[in-house]
Amino acid sequence: MPSNTLYVTKRGSFSFVLGLVASALFRRFEALRLDKKTPPSALFIPNRKSGDGKPTKVRRLRASDASKGFYELLSQLTEVGKGDFGRRFREITNGCERVYVIESEDGSRIVASGTLVLERKFTRNCGTCGHIEDVVVDEGERGRDLGRVIVEALTRAAEACGCYKVILDCNESNVGFYERCGFKRKEVQMAKYFI
Amino acid sequence: MPSNTLYVTKRGSFSFVLGLVASALFRRFEALRLDKKTPPSALFIPNRKSGDGKPTKVRRLRASDASKGFYELLSQLTEVGKGDFGRRFREITNGCERVYVIESEDGSRIVASGTLVLERKFTRNCGTCGHIEDVVVDEGERGRDLGRVIVEALTRAAEACGCYKVILDCNESNVGFYERCGFKRKEVQMAKYFI
Repeated sequence: MPSNTLYVTKRGSFSFVLGLVASALFRRFEALRLDKKTPPSALFIPNRKSGDGKPTKVRRLRASDASKGFYELLSQLTEVGKGDFGRRFREITNGCERVYVIESEDGSRIVASGTLVLERKFTRNCGTCGHIEDVVVDEGERGRDLGRVIVEALTRAAEACGCYKVILDCNESNVGFYERCGFKRKEVQMAKYFI
Repeated sequence: MPSNTLYVTKRGSFSFVLGLVASALFRRFEALRLDKKTPPSALFIPNRKSGDGKPTKVRRLRASDASKGFYELLSQLTEVGKGDFGRRFREITNGCERVYVIESEDGSRIVASGTLVLERKFTRNCGTCGHIEDVVVDEGERGRDLGRVIVEALTRAAEACGCYKVILDCNESNVGFYERCGFKRKEVQMAKYFI
């Protein structure tokens, strides 16, 4: 009965796809259920030094930013190396890290960047702590309030994600800058390097 | 033809389940591919003050630890509150946080705990930075080297996960302890509280 066999095969394929779709929907539902407070995809932060008085747009990193000088910007912060951007981008998209950037006015380059890491705790009513990491402004764009703007954006994103606090580590020489951003000196950072 | 209908239904159900299994296998493969270096489920750390010379076992948190005084232990560190342990446990199991604990000798209670948060960066060859958080030893068990043991376990777990460094923040009064654990003073922690 060839017609019947075909019917069975079609039914089987349909059910297989239905299984895949059901699994994907379940995962999506689970992700939404567990992490209701999603981070904003873009924030508009008042800039004290913008000529036209417009707020500065800070948006989440996109895969296409690899070709907009994102690595060159990070190399002004620390050693960068030849890591696989595409793979890291996928890991970070699904992870606890939120990378935000500011574009140049013509949209051709990334001129500032900073990362918010969300740490879920059992303390503080199972609260979330935000860690600000890797804040950097392009050296040709400094003095335009972008450092304060990106820190303000990361702080607001942390609050939008339900964090009870946001913390960061900085050099002694940057303490004044972060105090002007509303932060207070708290503890001592200790480090151990493996490489 | 009831027998044929049954056959088709069975085939359909089988394919549906096959779809679910294929999706789960794909996700597992993807997780392994993206994060090849999985954290150890247990570490055995030499204890300088153990009577029998045996190393101390440090293992990852289990869902059943909620009934072993895990919250009571954390309350010796900071405010705990009434968060949903089961939900947080599932989030942390799938997240960037690795909680490790030490059991009492009779296995009835959790007597020490600490968390390792894995932060994936674009810098340092797309390296990973380990953050040690919420280290606590039960007040009745202090002076038994468990503080150093749990920090050593978290440090080794970070190295096993491929971290290039591990960092933590502590009070000025604990700097000496962490220096004895092989850490060096680096920067200043700044904080902003929302609640």
